[in-house]
Amino acid sequence: MATRLSDVAARAGVSVKTVSNVINDYPHITARTRAKVEAAIAELEYTPNVSARSLRKGRSDFIALAVPEMASPYFAELGAAVSRAAKKRGITVLIDQTEGEAAGEKLVLDGMRGQLIDGIIFSPITTSPAKIGSADTAKPLLLLGERHAGGTFDHVAVDSVQASFDATTHLISIGRRRIAAIGVGGGAGTGSVRRKGYRKALKAAGLEVDPTLEVGGPGYHREDGAASMRELLALPEPPDAVFCFNDLLAIGALRALADAGLSAPKDVAVIGFDDIEDGRFHSPSLSTISPDKEWLAENAVALLLDRIAGSAGRRDSAGNGEADRVDLTVPYTLQIRESTGG
Amino acid sequence: MATRLSDVAARAGVSVKTVSNVINDYPHITARTRAKVEAAIAELEYTPNVSARSLRKGRSDFIALAVPEMASPYFAELGAAVSRAAKKRGITVLIDQTEGEAAGEKLVLDGMRGQLIDGIIFSPITTSPAKIGSADTAKPLLLLGERHAGGTFDHVAVDSVQASFDATTHLISIGRRRIAAIGVGGGAGTGSVRRKGYRKALKAAGLEVDPTLEVGGPGYHREDGAASMRELLALPEPPDAVFCFNDLLAIGALRALADAGLSAPKDVAVIGFDDIEDGRFHSPSLSTISPDKEWLAENAVALLLDRIAGSAGRRDSAGNGEADRVDLTVPYTLQIRESTGG
Repeated sequence: MATRLSDVAARAGVSVKTVSNVINDYPHITARTRAKVEAAIAELEYTPNVSARSLRKGRSDFIALAVPEMASPYFAELGAAVSRAAKKRGITVLIDQTEGEAAGEKLVLDGMRGQLIDGIIFSPITTSPAKIGSADTAKPLLLLGERHAGGTFDHVAVDSVQASFDATTHLISIGRRRIAAIGVGGGAGTGSVRRKGYRKALKAAGLEVDPTLEVGGPGYHREDGAASMRELLALPEPPDAVFCFNDLLAIGALRALADAGLSAPKDVAVIGFDDIEDGRFHSPSLSTISPDKEWLAENAVALLLDRIAGSAGRRDSAGNGEADRVDLTVPYTLQIRESTGG
Repeated sequence: MATRLSDVAARAGVSVKTVSNVINDYPHITARTRAKVEAAIAELEYTPNVSARSLRKGRSDFIALAVPEMASPYFAELGAAVSRAAKKRGITVLIDQTEGEAAGEKLVLDGMRGQLIDGIIFSPITTSPAKIGSADTAKPLLLLGERHAGGTFDHVAVDSVQASFDATTHLISIGRRRIAAIGVGGGAGTGSVRRKGYRKALKAAGLEVDPTLEVGGPGYHREDGAASMRELLALPEPPDAVFCFNDLLAIGALRALADAGLSAPKDVAVIGFDDIEDGRFHSPSLSTISPDKEWLAENAVALLLDRIAGSAGRRDSAGNGEADRVDLTVPYTLQIRESTGG
């Protein structure tokens, strides 16, 4: 027999209304009450009757998170955080892997299936800003990451220029002078935006920008970082530090150093970007820029759900109604670990 | 204007029927023809008109993959492989994170939403075999992993006892005699099944089974492996090798060794299980059991799609029709790397 709201209320010793308020994540509920209700929900294995609720509301209570690669730890960790943030609000997140391919991203922009989901959080790689900007999606859509879309959609991202400036400045602060960058050819605007912050930091410190030290193609995987580091080590004058535009590249770079009988930070200091768990457990542990993924997930989900609740009047097919577009900047910290002498 | 099948056919210089055959992944198409059609699909950014197709077939062409944690690299890599295998067949995979919680797994067993998806690939952690076995899911469901479900559902898994036997035997073959196991308290049957293989190998080599060397609770994360290794290093007589029941535990164990000023394989040889990419780039690189994830994904998707195509007559509410249940064993290899002297 299915557990009902009233069973949860009885077990928690509160009213049905209070249980409902906790499930719908209303404010002004004490931590003590919330804990009691959540314990009762867990004990009774209560699941809100989503089908009935959905019929009533004309919504599915499912949202999609469309990412290029779910096997990339950054997207996997982000997906887990988004899933948790949504669950607290009674929403289930389904993750779709576009593989950064045009067809997959087009499916996302087409609103996937109208009947399936209420809205989409989308991290594009292949699709151009112009295409995203002109898309008239059937469902509310929120963009993550570097790529701005001409102001049509809500957008949540780290200030990559400033964060890259900070990462590079840290390498300068530990006395490094020949600082390379790996990942400059990165897709979705990441490569050019992070290089901008890197160059800005060099110039601010009066260091020369040397294009032979700016390497890396579109790939942002471990093997790409290893290949780029081997390329840098083969230079007549190799670098004494390297800023990698994500942690996977940095882990590949560390591996290439080890293969060459060199070590970080002694021979080459290495810093990454993303703060994936992998880097924290690496030997040496990896210094990095740590975006607040929980903050990102909470705010992206809350913003999308606001849009879903009031989406009807938001924008028409001519693209009007853009004035209320929201652009949120994700907080981050610089994490100094062994790979830069921390 | 939307690209049509005939546009793809014209570009590829083949018939519309041939394009359709390639999209539906029919056999007996030459590699050359397939390549031409796929190139044309990519150039024209063609997406099959799924909505129309779905209405015609009464299916959504979406399946769900329900995993405990998408931030776990093993599940993230598996998710990517399942997504690719499905995409080749025109199916989109949506990933749902149950967090191994009863409520999340119940939603999966309830068939999620009938209208959403055609079938589910499910990797359970919390839900007991009895509950899974007695579930009368609305949609075809395929189980992954250790936990058998009383023969009701199709099941795809590695032979964990044999693989664990092989991993432990490898440690014995390099001369280790005091071999520990990390992860024995693991959920979903993993801990007990892998310990069985571990003990079997010790006995086969005439080595004593020492319960003080069998450690680890339900957590299978890096920090759990580090904690278990610290516990082993504090023993009066620490081990000279350790078999970790997944790669994350092994990476945590390696980190704890480094923190203690010890190294693998010199002081303690370390082997894991899963072959996540993280381990291949670690220093030292991690020896492991490598299940064929592509094989797993291909076969799980193909089997589920067969069920979806013919699911109506498969089993009734009394559970009849179980005779045709399929149990597939995933091939694996032993990967010997630096952490065991490779």
